[in-house]
Amino acid sequence: MTATAWQLRRAEPTASDLEQVDAWWRAANYLSVGQIYLLDNPLLREPLEREHLKPRLLGHWGTTPGLTFVQAHLNRTIRERRQRTLFVTGPGHGGPGVVAGAYLEGVYSERYPDVSLDEQGMQRLFRQFSFPGGIPSHAAPETPGSINEGGELGYSLAHAYGAAFDDPDLLVACVIGDGEAETGPLAASWHSNKLLNPAADGAVLPILHLNGWKIANPTLLARIPEEELVALLRGYGHEPLVVEVGADGEPALDAHARFAAVLDDALDRIATIKADASTGRLTARPAWPMIVLRSPKGWTGPREVDGSRVEGTWRSHQVPLSGVRDDDAHRGLLAEWLRSYRPGELFDERGAPVPLVASHAPEGELRMGAIPVANGGEVREPLRLTDFRDRAVEVDAASRGADEAEATAILGAWLAEVIRDNPETFRIFGPDETASNRLAPNVYASTDRQWNAETLPGDEHLAPTGRVMEVLSEHLCQGWLEGYLLTGRHGLCNTYEAFAHIVDSMLGQHAKWLESAARVPWREPISSLNFLLSSHVWRQDHNGFSHQDPGFIDVALNKSPEVVRVYLPFDANTLLSTADHCLRSTGYVNVVVAGKQPAPQWLSMAEAAEHCERGLGVLPWAGTETADRAPDAVLAAAGDVPTLEALAAASLLRERVPELSLRVVNVVDLTRLQSEGQHPHGLPDADFDAIFTRDRPVVFAYHGYPWLIHRLTYKRAVHDDLHVRGYVERGTTTTPFDMVLLNDLDRYRLAMDVIERVPGLAESRADVLEEWADARARARAHTREHGVDIPEVADWLWQGGGPAE
Amino acid sequence: MTATAWQLRRAEPTASDLEQVDAWWRAANYLSVGQIYLLDNPLLREPLEREHLKPRLLGHWGTTPGLTFVQAHLNRTIRERRQRTLFVTGPGHGGPGVVAGAYLEGVYSERYPDVSLDEQGMQRLFRQFSFPGGIPSHAAPETPGSINEGGELGYSLAHAYGAAFDDPDLLVACVIGDGEAETGPLAASWHSNKLLNPAADGAVLPILHLNGWKIANPTLLARIPEEELVALLRGYGHEPLVVEVGADGEPALDAHARFAAVLDDALDRIATIKADASTGRLTARPAWPMIVLRSPKGWTGPREVDGSRVEGTWRSHQVPLSGVRDDDAHRGLLAEWLRSYRPGELFDERGAPVPLVASHAPEGELRMGAIPVANGGEVREPLRLTDFRDRAVEVDAASRGADEAEATAILGAWLAEVIRDNPETFRIFGPDETASNRLAPNVYASTDRQWNAETLPGDEHLAPTGRVMEVLSEHLCQGWLEGYLLTGRHGLCNTYEAFAHIVDSMLGQHAKWLESAARVPWREPISSLNFLLSSHVWRQDHNGFSHQDPGFIDVALNKSPEVVRVYLPFDANTLLSTADHCLRSTGYVNVVVAGKQPAPQWLSMAEAAEHCERGLGVLPWAGTETADRAPDAVLAAAGDVPTLEALAAASLLRERVPELSLRVVNVVDLTRLQSEGQHPHGLPDADFDAIFTRDRPVVFAYHGYPWLIHRLTYKRAVHDDLHVRGYVERGTTTTPFDMVLLNDLDRYRLAMDVIERVPGLAESRADVLEEWADARARARAHTREHGVDIPEVADWLWQGGGPAE
Repeated sequence: MTATAWQLRRAEPTASDLEQVDAWWRAANYLSVGQIYLLDNPLLREPLEREHLKPRLLGHWGTTPGLTFVQAHLNRTIRERRQRTLFVTGPGHGGPGVVAGAYLEGVYSERYPDVSLDEQGMQRLFRQFSFPGGIPSHAAPETPGSINEGGELGYSLAHAYGAAFDDPDLLVACVIGDGEAETGPLAASWHSNKLLNPAADGAVLPILHLNGWKIANPTLLARIPEEELVALLRGYGHEPLVVEVGADGEPALDAHARFAAVLDDALDRIATIKADASTGRLTARPAWPMIVLRSPKGWTGPREVDGSRVEGTWRSHQVPLSGVRDDDAHRGLLAEWLRSYRPGELFDERGAPVPLVASHAPEGELRMGAIPVANGGEVREPLRLTDFRDRAVEVDAASRGADEAEATAILGAWLAEVIRDNPETFRIFGPDETASNRLAPNVYASTDRQWNAETLPGDEHLAPTGRVMEVLSEHLCQGWLEGYLLTGRHGLCNTYEAFAHIVDSMLGQHAKWLESAARVPWREPISSLNFLLSSHVWRQDHNGFSHQDPGFIDVALNKSPEVVRVYLPFDANTLLSTADHCLRSTGYVNVVVAGKQPAPQWLSMAEAAEHCERGLGVLPWAGTETADRAPDAVLAAAGDVPTLEALAAASLLRERVPELSLRVVNVVDLTRLQSEGQHPHGLPDADFDAIFTRDRPVVFAYHGYPWLIHRLTYKRAVHDDLHVRGYVERGTTTTPFDMVLLNDLDRYRLAMDVIERVPGLAESRADVLEEWADARARARAHTREHGVDIPEVADWLWQGGGPAE
Repeated sequence: MTATAWQLRRAEPTASDLEQVDAWWRAANYLSVGQIYLLDNPLLREPLEREHLKPRLLGHWGTTPGLTFVQAHLNRTIRERRQRTLFVTGPGHGGPGVVAGAYLEGVYSERYPDVSLDEQGMQRLFRQFSFPGGIPSHAAPETPGSINEGGELGYSLAHAYGAAFDDPDLLVACVIGDGEAETGPLAASWHSNKLLNPAADGAVLPILHLNGWKIANPTLLARIPEEELVALLRGYGHEPLVVEVGADGEPALDAHARFAAVLDDALDRIATIKADASTGRLTARPAWPMIVLRSPKGWTGPREVDGSRVEGTWRSHQVPLSGVRDDDAHRGLLAEWLRSYRPGELFDERGAPVPLVASHAPEGELRMGAIPVANGGEVREPLRLTDFRDRAVEVDAASRGADEAEATAILGAWLAEVIRDNPETFRIFGPDETASNRLAPNVYASTDRQWNAETLPGDEHLAPTGRVMEVLSEHLCQGWLEGYLLTGRHGLCNTYEAFAHIVDSMLGQHAKWLESAARVPWREPISSLNFLLSSHVWRQDHNGFSHQDPGFIDVALNKSPEVVRVYLPFDANTLLSTADHCLRSTGYVNVVVAGKQPAPQWLSMAEAAEHCERGLGVLPWAGTETADRAPDAVLAAAGDVPTLEALAAASLLRERVPELSLRVVNVVDLTRLQSEGQHPHGLPDADFDAIFTRDRPVVFAYHGYPWLIHRLTYKRAVHDDLHVRGYVERGTTTTPFDMVLLNDLDRYRLAMDVIERVPGLAESRADVLEEWADARARARAHTREHGVDIPEVADWLWQGGGPAE
């Protein structure tokens, strides 16, 4: 029973084919209305009474009949063509429709056996919807066949393309709501077809569902002349097929006939493109078909309620009849509405779908609710990874801090191997910054950027097939990656740190998806969403203030600790180890912040691997504590620039304040700072105290906004004596050292912080404090006069190791 | 010397007109290159030596010559037509070009007298660019005439429309980079023309600048067939005028002639549309012209460097010649490049622009660098505001907590008056949620939604002129509002709380703009950016988890305390008072979170005004402390739902634990919690301690993520005994009370928290703890069984006042 991709239509649908489509559609609509309204009496075998109705009516009817209409027709084409079809629903708040479809396919009962295909199961299906302890009102991880929540609008088409990459036999049918179409991310997504490879990737069939209304407003695309709309879609590179159904009470079978013809036309065009692509006949980017489906909002629902038109207007957006429990007329309308689907023809005595309806579902994994790629963890295979240790930068005690390397460039060399060894399951996504972030040129030794728009002489690393996907839209990069991961593959999104905020909300939605999915028994874990943030806050020398923002970490850490991890590797070897860990992991959002500039290297590969394994630890070679003398203070750091400054501060202290016993700590995995009960990575208090002490002053140099460290550590014994320096929103176009000076994160300030916090030391070493205050002032003046940092810091001076060497 | 809007061209430009355009262009290019490279020898009067060059070369050349080209031509049309023209530059990282333009106009020297129009001034101009202590590398608040930073790409066109609203004589010429055009926000912005009113608003002329390349990739729109591009732009509702210049070494004067003709054509078309609109001849939405300008990236720069093509490729993106200090050949190329502009013809002996160049600038406020609306505070007038107290909900000691009202609906009634009294300077923006957030219907008593797409019978509150702007794009709503504010007007953006995260990054950029602008002496303060977040985390009953996220507050509070304010009014009267305050304020981002559901009302108007004035305070009627007995504990709350739960907890405690002396505190202005030195609103420690005590347990019920309260209060004496409850990322589609139960924010939990934290009380009142633990379990079970909250909480029971009554 394997799928056979890209068949042409065998014949026009017969009248009985269309009657079957209609029966399935009516059944799905009946089940949708039932979910919104009914607690009991699911088959309407008794007169509809108050107690049969939910006390709180929650759900969205308006978009639902359009979704079920498309599903009904896709079922026919899937059966006829045996075409693997993933159904992505932008208007995912039409959840009842998607759930109804999975139920009619039998998938729902397979996933949730108590929601069986009988009267009792139907009652459970109805009751659980938008009910406390039940299922959400939108398509969600709980919904079989879904990879797109559709609560926050805008990501369906990007998800659809992400699902299509590297799955050449997959059709992704993506319904885009006309509300969603107004969002920026969706508007940008149309151009995804410029990167799709018709031979090696699947096909996306966008179905723009113009039902005309959002919550309370008409939609823009429904209110422009058709020639303008068609021009727009042609401009997006599509061949639009426009069909209007349901107007003026058009008989359903007429609507079905016309939509079936358009859908067949679209699928035939796709089949032809795919055939031409596979034989090499297709050389230019094709104009993929897409469908514009005009249908009334709330189609088949109440036409008029309390004197106001409902069907075909915004009034059908949520619950068209709101007074059904207390208003007999409303209740009567609801009963009439439900009966209009003729449930007696659709469900048998037991409450199961009659054969006409049941047999409309495709077989097995061809059912849209059962397609394996919609449960990506089920098809996911781990990456083949070479040993990252082989890419190590050589560091030993003698060379520590002496040689420079670009961490992301080193990572790029390893990623080139990942790409080479996983040619169909791993991609890198980024908003035109793979080169700027220095992953190139190494990555381009293995691959190109995938590109199917025009090429010109002189273009470099653009090819129809490539593993790097670049477009100047963080939304699109992340949306593609999410779609790719949700369908069982692996990837990495690299972007400028500041502009990760552009996808804050997408991060939140994906984290919510992961958290919910982890509680769905049949969902297998998918690969983690890996962010590599480079070009970070401390090294935006030429872009300045607008590019200086480390707050994405804070947004990520507001999400559930079950799904979020944040890593701040501080040199190339710790980055390699971190990246290896992230690419192996499942179920998380991993945020990795790493530098791209030439910077000193600190840990040997063995040290780095061990340090990353622990997530944090003492750097014994950097401090001055000895076996017989406990530290007077702890100087901790997280992030490459803060660690450099902390190590330089340790150097200064070692040289100028030799009487001080100092411990130096580095943190790579931020969540280790949290207490055990707060985060799965949280370090037990005893272990934390063994590193940070319980009672010595801790000066913490942190990459981002300093309060985050307080938040993470506020339950620790030492917290009241923890002093954090970080980015305090002081920035401009200036030199690297001036940036740390501006934000009081520089080596002198850190060293002074330590002295000021060790009892008695400030008094005895007032000379040093004065000297360093002066050094800071001179550094600022020098920079302003000469435009460069003072030579000492420009050379990133690191003055040798501590007693452990 | 007043402007006279919307003239047709008087004549074709003569050869000498075009020569003047060219001279100005060359001068602007010369100054741009000078800014990127030169420390000294600004007029190249000596051979170019190493020491004349900046030690660090930071800047973006690639997009600059296109910007200066457009500026040069706009200067001609402004002079000829006397047309007020605001220049918005999406590729704002072409900062040198915009600065050069303002310098040539003389505006720069007026704003910064030491950057004078002579050799010394020119040297300062060059030196300060991207230099520590100097000016940023992008167009920025420091740049005269700029309202758009262009560091984070995507917002130029939305800003342009925002500037055009309600300024019927203003032309906004908006250059859109082809990189920027790939972003979601920009892609969505094209449809802004469906809301613009051709009679009452200004005109926007988008100029899509196709120079073909981003940082390292070709741009999508430069690599699709022209017919596809034209279809796309027609689909956006524009009449595109395509012009290619500079190809194959085209002589500059030919380029100028062709672009001048296209620009004249575009402006004539706009003038015709405006004339037709003003006479009423125009009834349908017009197809506004727009220009597609194809020019080589890095045009007029080095054609080839080290054997690689640079002009016309991505290699010209930043600094085309990177080795000029150490590589004589590079330095020679730079000298040649600078001399190619023939500076000797452009600047006189003193270094001032020669008359041919200087006289190309328009006069006075017609200069694009001097246009008053680009310094919005200069033209801003305060709103006419009716007394918000007149809209008060009646509350007195007897009715406190008894009557319900919808806070946002009450606000809507007052906003209707604001709209009525400020018919040209105040607008409400929102992503189709003005009704859902309950500002409607009251707001629609005064106005409609502005809409210039098709209307159909049955449409409500859609009109060509209206004060509410709705489209389903948070980016667009905020972008329009920012443009509107930056040009001197007032407004409010209302959105679902969770989806404010969609514009996190825009918030950050605007906050950075405000912070930088406050340090620019000639920039007058603009109206604050007011966010009204409703449909908040606690009342997303029907949308569930995807709509539950209170983290926008955290993102806002990461920005500079100088510019961010966060308010959590907890009933209608506190919301009215807060809104009045926000609409009067300048220079801030005000984030206001307020409920829209029917909810009990707590403070009389007089109390509310006083409470909001203080920002926080004791609610004496809710606690049980007495004059002769200090409190045993403090129960604090911020936000409407947390305050309701805290007050209900206080009721429970009063009834069941009468031996407890309890103080109840409410916080409206979150930043009052911070220490004096941390935020301008920070409460002095003594005042804080007087409210929260120094040594009693504080249980704090907070609207959002609980760690924020710890962050804000961590320097307070009581901090170690502060226990915060808030949203901990537990959510789903469920009832209101179940939501607070899920997150441990419910009245029982809060009351138990108090008991558990007062020494000895837990032991003596174990009975009560057990009873309430049981009540919580029963509430959850009841909700799961019946789908509704237990009656006690569904009725929002508030059991009378405390001893102060």
